Amino acid sequence: MAQKPSIPKGTRDFTPQEMAKRNYIFDTIRSVFRLYGFQQIETPAMENLSTLMGKYGEEGDKLLFKILNSGDWTKALPPIGGETQGDEAMRSSLQADGAGFSIGKLTTLVSEKGLRYDLTVPFARFVVQNRDKIQFPFKRYQIQPVWRADRPQKGRYREFYQCDVDVVGTDSLVSELELIQIVEEVYRRLGIRVCLKLNNRKILAGIAEIIGEADRLIDITVAIDKLDKIGLDNVNNELLAKGLPQEAVDKLQPILHLSGSNTEKLETLRTVLAASEVGLKGVEETETVLKLWANAVGGDEAMRSSLPIELDLTLARGLNYYTGAIFEVKALDVEIGSITGGGRYDNLTGIFGMPGVSGVGISFGADRIYDVLNQLDLYPAASVDQTKVLFATFGEAELAYALGWAKQLRASGVNVEVYPEPVKMKRQMNYADQKQIPFVAIVGGDEMAAGTVMLKNMTTGEQKACSLEELHAALM
Amino acid sequence: MAQKPSIPKGTRDFTPQEMAKRNYIFDTIRSVFRLYGFQQIETPAMENLSTLMGKYGEEGDKLLFKILNSGDWTKALPPIGGETQGDEAMRSSLQADGAGFSIGKLTTLVSEKGLRYDLTVPFARFVVQNRDKIQFPFKRYQIQPVWRADRPQKGRYREFYQCDVDVVGTDSLVSELELIQIVEEVYRRLGIRVCLKLNNRKILAGIAEIIGEADRLIDITVAIDKLDKIGLDNVNNELLAKGLPQEAVDKLQPILHLSGSNTEKLETLRTVLAASEVGLKGVEETETVLKLWANAVGGDEAMRSSLPIELDLTLARGLNYYTGAIFEVKALDVEIGSITGGGRYDNLTGIFGMPGVSGVGISFGADRIYDVLNQLDLYPAASVDQTKVLFATFGEAELAYALGWAKQLRASGVNVEVYPEPVKMKRQMNYADQKQIPFVAIVGGDEMAAGTVMLKNMTTGEQKACSLEELHAALM
Repeated sequence: MAQKPSIPKGTRDFTPQEMAKRNYIFDTIRSVFRLYGFQQIETPAMENLSTLMGKYGEEGDKLLFKILNSGDWTKALPPIGGETQGDEAMRSSLQADGAGFSIGKLTTLVSEKGLRYDLTVPFARFVVQNRDKIQFPFKRYQIQPVWRADRPQKGRYREFYQCDVDVVGTDSLVSELELIQIVEEVYRRLGIRVCLKLNNRKILAGIAEIIGEADRLIDITVAIDKLDKIGLDNVNNELLAKGLPQEAVDKLQPILHLSGSNTEKLETLRTVLAASEVGLKGVEETETVLKLWANAVGGDEAMRSSLPIELDLTLARGLNYYTGAIFEVKALDVEIGSITGGGRYDNLTGIFGMPGVSGVGISFGADRIYDVLNQLDLYPAASVDQTKVLFATFGEAELAYALGWAKQLRASGVNVEVYPEPVKMKRQMNYADQKQIPFVAIVGGDEMAAGTVMLKNMTTGEQKACSLEELHAALM
Repeated sequence: MAQKPSIPKGTRDFTPQEMAKRNYIFDTIRSVFRLYGFQQIETPAMENLSTLMGKYGEEGDKLLFKILNSGDWTKALPPIGGETQGDEAMRSSLQADGAGFSIGKLTTLVSEKGLRYDLTVPFARFVVQNRDKIQFPFKRYQIQPVWRADRPQKGRYREFYQCDVDVVGTDSLVSELELIQIVEEVYRRLGIRVCLKLNNRKILAGIAEIIGEADRLIDITVAIDKLDKIGLDNVNNELLAKGLPQEAVDKLQPILHLSGSNTEKLETLRTVLAASEVGLKGVEETETVLKLWANAVGGDEAMRSSLPIELDLTLARGLNYYTGAIFEVKALDVEIGSITGGGRYDNLTGIFGMPGVSGVGISFGADRIYDVLNQLDLYPAASVDQTKVLFATFGEAELAYALGWAKQLRASGVNVEVYPEPVKMKRQMNYADQKQIPFVAIVGGDEMAAGTVMLKNMTTGEQKACSLEELHAALM
């Protein structure tokens, strides 16, 4: 007997039960994207390595899955093999950078393509390549798997889906508003209580400018982030230990003490950042976004309470490419980190030779949302995939009779199954049970003679004879 | 300026317009699959090469996209490089099979994973690996891309979607019926006129048995296939030239002359195959399937005429694994080859150590269906992705006003866009035009004062002032 087969580590099969849950998430997200006029695109799983390399940092380059060139890939390599006395040490020396045979270089000789690492770089490439076919502002969404050769661990996979939504070609802050509205609507529909953390890269840049340490953005946000855990004194000491001058640390104090409502925080920031043009611009942008949101919410208490927004200067995701608003969404009832995040970038397509295209986007983490819904048991009872009724029959004639009824029901759009053989009734009922089919229509000689079926409600156990019309009514 | 980016040959980007069409196809197919109780699964893009290799023939092995192992993949190789005098001839000799460094062998040293080549082998692997989580008969569908390192050419891609639907774990011919019904329903909904060609591997085996040439199945079907083109005499000569004895060719004559209705053909076959148990079994299976179909159609002329079924012995697809019914669907109004095909297999999972699981399945060719719909111009005018109305505004106050209206409309499920900036009206109208948005709600100071919008029908050019309620009514 052959060995039981397996799949590559870090990858997953999705069973029908899992797919029903995943489709529920994707369908919900997709329908909200559509509500705001976003349209779907897809890009190939494989991109040229020249498109991918150098976009995710050195570590990212290593995590790209690379495709071996087709045909005789060995041809491009220096001679392989020969005398096998070539020991480990010798080979290492040959492959060291100095000898010109680094792994990276050899890899470029045997591989020209890699698997998509995220949806952002392929999107930028798409916009540049298809600019003539696109209407700007371009509102697109994309739901596709990405692949990363990360060390697999709990909750981290080598293949996972991203759900990205972006507007490019406008710097209007209405786009930020719409993304926040999308976040609110998606999580309201899913029933997950969340809060949205908001920051702005320009505010952070302003802070760095004010304290004269433009390069220390990360150090500063890390320090602010630790405030709750280690206290103000320790944070200050840490900043000094990292080489920040006393004067800069002093100037940071009002920011470390930042508290109160978003309005109060922005007031403080406006004072502190008075001398920084970029900082004030960040304050102004954030105010505008919050004002747009307040107007949109209006008197809508439900909407306001379903998405609390908090200005949070410790939010430092994507600092190497975000240029304006930065978003992060956290579930309130589950400890799981960020389940959605994004921000505004001013030069996404610049790397592909198309500068000056501003955009803003967010990405929904389907796998984490899946876990949250599981933990909170928030999936709806029935999925769209669900069969409504199974016909179970006692013989071949009954089976033919059932096929006729099934055809009628399907013509009205009811999802119907007919157990394909008149096997033992227990086995047919068990099938319905396992597949969680809510109704079974049992057909024996009596039912055929009477022109009915015996309809069993699998939840209550109730049974009753039904005509086709009655069955129809019971299932709709 | 950077070079304009590109994508690997044989792969495609899908624009929003193309995705809307593709989603229409996938949604149609999916909803019919669900109507019959099929449930979706997904498998990883990457499979272990041990799962894939040897399943698609020698040529198929070569067409697999192989993933380079992560980390230092060169370690597993014999020493690379050294003196560069290693010329082509020397390297070839080292890499020849005899020297133990064939490309195939070297490939196994640097690659353990490959991209999915079809959905059938991963499905078989899935069934074996997840047998404890599955309810048999297992009715699954799967819509995912597959990858083949084929030479790209018109209509042949290196990445393309397959839409497979299979039942495994029953040998009931009701499953064949349901697949035929699915074909009928999918193409009826898409508006494509098709015919279904039906064959049975057992009939072909019976013919080979009767003429004493069990190994010559392919030769025989090829010959029958040429009948129309080259005539009976030439076919007979060709068969003789291929080494078939005169006696066998004589016995083949009634089959080469096979004509008339399906019933007449089956009558002839029953006589010719009287001495072949397997052949008669094939005739009987085919009769049963046709009878089940006739019963299902009943008096339904529309259904009958929307899917003519023709018994066609030249249908020889998948002869190396199909064991019963063989299906192929052709579009009647476009020359494009098969757009759907499949059959019954009795031992799909045997390769993974789980024998005795019979199944039957078909695969819809999304790319060809896409081309057919394009050629016949059968796409519906509006897609589900479509934005219903765009708000175009003359100023910031109007923009805020429009955002409020948009919120109300979206709450009723209307897909709405608000142009994010009050730029020139012409640009906003052009955006609606390009995106084929059917209505534009124009907002200026007068409309704001009156609590209305000016609704423009983009098809007729008509304009009228609307209250929110009237707008709502106009869009639903």
